[in-house]
Amino acid sequence: MTRLFNDPARFADDMVTGFAAAHPDHVRAVPGGVVRARPTRTGKVAVLTGGGSGHYPAFCGVVGPGFADGSVIGDVFTSPSAARARSVAEAAQAGGGVLFLFGNYAGDVMNFGLAARQLADDGIPARCFAVTDDIASAPAGQTARRRGIAGGFVVFKTASAAAEEGASLDEVVRVAELTNARTRTLGVAFDGCTLPGAGEPLFTVPEGRLGLGLGIHGEPGVSEDTLGTAEDLARALVAGLLADRPAGTDGEGRVAVVLNGLGATKYEELYVLWGAVARLLDEAGLTPVRPEVGELVTSLDMAGCSLTLSWLDDELERLWLAPADTPAFRRTPPAEPPVDDAAVRPAAAPRRRARSAATASGAAVEVAELAVHALRAARDVLHRDAEALGRLDAVAGDGDHGRGMCKGVDAALAAAEKAHTDRLAPAAVLAAAGDAWAAEAGGTSGALWGVALRAIGGALPADRAPGREELASAAAAALTAVTSLGGAEVGDKTLVDALAPFATGFAARLRTGAPVSEAYASAAAEARTAAENTAGLRPRLGRARPLADRSVGTPDPGATSLAAVLTAVATLRATTGSEPV
Amino acid sequence: MTRLFNDPARFADDMVTGFAAAHPDHVRAVPGGVVRARPTRTGKVAVLTGGGSGHYPAFCGVVGPGFADGSVIGDVFTSPSAARARSVAEAAQAGGGVLFLFGNYAGDVMNFGLAARQLADDGIPARCFAVTDDIASAPAGQTARRRGIAGGFVVFKTASAAAEEGASLDEVVRVAELTNARTRTLGVAFDGCTLPGAGEPLFTVPEGRLGLGLGIHGEPGVSEDTLGTAEDLARALVAGLLADRPAGTDGEGRVAVVLNGLGATKYEELYVLWGAVARLLDEAGLTPVRPEVGELVTSLDMAGCSLTLSWLDDELERLWLAPADTPAFRRTPPAEPPVDDAAVRPAAAPRRRARSAATASGAAVEVAELAVHALRAARDVLHRDAEALGRLDAVAGDGDHGRGMCKGVDAALAAAEKAHTDRLAPAAVLAAAGDAWAAEAGGTSGALWGVALRAIGGALPADRAPGREELASAAAAALTAVTSLGGAEVGDKTLVDALAPFATGFAARLRTGAPVSEAYASAAAEARTAAENTAGLRPRLGRARPLADRSVGTPDPGATSLAAVLTAVATLRATTGSEPV
Repeated sequence: MTRLFNDPARFADDMVTGFAAAHPDHVRAVPGGVVRARPTRTGKVAVLTGGGSGHYPAFCGVVGPGFADGSVIGDVFTSPSAARARSVAEAAQAGGGVLFLFGNYAGDVMNFGLAARQLADDGIPARCFAVTDDIASAPAGQTARRRGIAGGFVVFKTASAAAEEGASLDEVVRVAELTNARTRTLGVAFDGCTLPGAGEPLFTVPEGRLGLGLGIHGEPGVSEDTLGTAEDLARALVAGLLADRPAGTDGEGRVAVVLNGLGATKYEELYVLWGAVARLLDEAGLTPVRPEVGELVTSLDMAGCSLTLSWLDDELERLWLAPADTPAFRRTPPAEPPVDDAAVRPAAAPRRRARSAATASGAAVEVAELAVHALRAARDVLHRDAEALGRLDAVAGDGDHGRGMCKGVDAALAAAEKAHTDRLAPAAVLAAAGDAWAAEAGGTSGALWGVALRAIGGALPADRAPGREELASAAAAALTAVTSLGGAEVGDKTLVDALAPFATGFAARLRTGAPVSEAYASAAAEARTAAENTAGLRPRLGRARPLADRSVGTPDPGATSLAAVLTAVATLRATTGSEPV
Repeated sequence: MTRLFNDPARFADDMVTGFAAAHPDHVRAVPGGVVRARPTRTGKVAVLTGGGSGHYPAFCGVVGPGFADGSVIGDVFTSPSAARARSVAEAAQAGGGVLFLFGNYAGDVMNFGLAARQLADDGIPARCFAVTDDIASAPAGQTARRRGIAGGFVVFKTASAAAEEGASLDEVVRVAELTNARTRTLGVAFDGCTLPGAGEPLFTVPEGRLGLGLGIHGEPGVSEDTLGTAEDLARALVAGLLADRPAGTDGEGRVAVVLNGLGATKYEELYVLWGAVARLLDEAGLTPVRPEVGELVTSLDMAGCSLTLSWLDDELERLWLAPADTPAFRRTPPAEPPVDDAAVRPAAAPRRRARSAATASGAAVEVAELAVHALRAARDVLHRDAEALGRLDAVAGDGDHGRGMCKGVDAALAAAEKAHTDRLAPAAVLAAAGDAWAAEAGGTSGALWGVALRAIGGALPADRAPGREELASAAAAALTAVTSLGGAEVGDKTLVDALAPFATGFAARLRTGAPVSEAYASAAAEARTAAENTAGLRPRLGRARPLADRSVGTPDPGATSLAAVLTAVATLRATTGSEPV
């Protein structure tokens, strides 16, 4: 919803004030809207965009060299008056006449039409052109009745570029008409926007549904469907547009493309969608020319997006690619084709870290095998507990701890199995497992488990079973690796709160002469208790772990998953009866 | 919420695929992220941004000449692994060493730190720098523990520009440190974002409240407050930042500024806020240098924003302004100062439309006065019915019909009163009223009421009371003006459905010899019935009125407000007993 405003009735005025203040190099405010900061050359056709506000960067965001000469700004979703249109035109016109460009909506058609007639009466040649790109708003035989949505961006761009080149008013109108005739847009909405000061959204779409062709102000669409995958949506949009391919474009393969977000459907989502759209266009024999993926014609915080295809001939491609410099859109001259991959500086040689890749011998073979068993036990318990770990993490984190641990342990187990199949020594097996865990899981826990596994392996001999001292050292090495990488201390509400009591308890019990399996099991039980006790801790803020105070009362997910793994490995030891770790 | 994805676990990978496909001129994908499409010159320091994804255009959107050399991309809100960081660094490095730039979060510090050490072991000089701009995350004495948010954009920009200029790795690190030390950000959140595939938002903020200093992943903030006006928020942000002004900047007045939207807080809102922020900065003696108002560091569809101030010395200002060309951010060379307003081409002479401004004489004075009375009656009924009209309009429109009519009638009445005080003729009084209505209200109804009032006036004599034929003509002229401007016909579910029966009924009754007041009252009653009957109509789609089918069952708001005004004027006639309109 729209939350930032002063008096809702003054929203558009306040917006223009702030917009002009932010872009003094590009625009200056005049009654009714904005014009370029610097006058254009005498005789140039002035291209003016306009309409209700709430669609930024449409329409005022594209005023500047290479694009519009000015923009007429109405209240939110309300056509500006003819008087405002006239005022902006009088400030922007440079003797070459004026073209108003806008979307095909009743109020805009009336007000810009009135303004153009009045300007003409006053001796300023003025024309209007209403964009009609929305294929969902009227059938193919009635294109003149279609409304204008994101495809207006392409029409505005080519017409403005023609004016910048010095075309006459008639010529600029011809370019606008030609571009519009070759431009098709199909949009979807997932949810409506909320106007400044309104308590309810303008319209709603049921959760899990999408309105195909629903207009940007909630005008009726083609159908309501189940929201599927991004791939499904890409197919629906591309197929819809190709079914309405403009006459006279058969055999033409170059298209300007706008994949437009309406406000709350964000860039990452648009890029996911674009991956599928680009593939489908390629399959259809179409080549996107400088596609625009982002927010170009929004509708406040509406959720949804649209796809525009505009078939280019040579003239329109030149105009589409022409440079522009505006607050919201800058086009630099077309770059040289990217360097071919083969010519790119060869990547540095793959990193080869010195590591003990010696094959295992003697009892070390079984130790390596036990490491693989331990990772399997870890995998089983982490997959079993993944959802519960996610819930713990969701209290103060982003809820993905279970998923991240599964990703990590799966990769670690696969790497360890391969290394063990190659009969590598325990150190190499655990190094491979740690590296794979860190690389696949990423994040904090991935990095920590990566160094911990590597450190444990580093303490184990390659040709025999480890002694009691070596086992104690392995646990201590894991603790040291984790604390020196992460910087956390006991009491910071991290996995250190479980790892530290395990490492010290294990070593202490080994020193008393306890059997290794008993020492391990007792230490693992202590780790478990310690993990539960992290519920009472307040996380340390700042560098190491910027978690919310609201996690107080909830055990730390990292300590919990560590304790679960240690416990599962203890059970494994009990069932296999093996003595060494 | 995030709605567009295929497999949520593959979201970041799919995003990178689409991103690289959309920007082949700028980037190419490599394992772990993206690098520039074209290799940089040998010996240049490679600046790499990175972190979890979900923050676009941070971090991969700013790869290109003048900005980053590459970007390391993790899963959503998850630090990329050291292996990914190393992979991107190896592809991007050009012999001058590597600098990883990222926000101060545990996972990023660990993974980039590991990668830098491993690269250094392999003979590639590599450094890390963690941005700490968020003043809400730790107190002033503990700046090193602060997390990094939108201020990272300024640090990335200046450090990248220094590298582009040919600075050494040590120098680039120095610039990053210096910029970071002079950069402060304070943010607010209004609501949390929803991760791909998640059913619930990551966190929530109660409606009507804001979390001051709440982190972009929901980390704890400073306080929760009532959401006030944009002006209130501007004061809180500016005051908070000035209270944490960096040491050594006293007397310095030039600042890079980023007013950053987090995803669902849109451009119009940010510009409204900027208007207030710019004024407050000016009052504090600070001059924004090329301020950035928009979405630079987002958090999926999170609602909220942040303000960053970065105090510039001469070196940092040069680097902040240096050109850059990336997918999401293009900086053209600083423009010449805008032309002084006085030097701008003088606006065309104010339009003077030929109109009958003759002073009224005879009974025309009372006719003009009656017109003012009629507008007063219209004002009273429209203000009384404004909310109900808004509700009618909200069914298929944007709910502002009542507000727009009030805006229009208030302006019309003021203009008519002034014209009548100047003793102008009825035509001039109604022309002034119509022009004011259209100019102030804008939109469809503003334009229509504007031409209607003007048309009525045009039918009235300047020196006597109108005859019965002239009264009938006035009503017919209003209908003609409205239909020729708007193109609607009876049955299209517009105000024509009320105006047409009024005009024809009024004329027919006058022809039967009925007293004017009776003829008027009967016609007004018919208009009222006709307006109610629009409830059963299906609006015509397309050019004239692209309304939703869902308005079937609801009377048309434009017809309803017209009928209400006609009825109120009839009552007025009954109370004043005047005969002519």
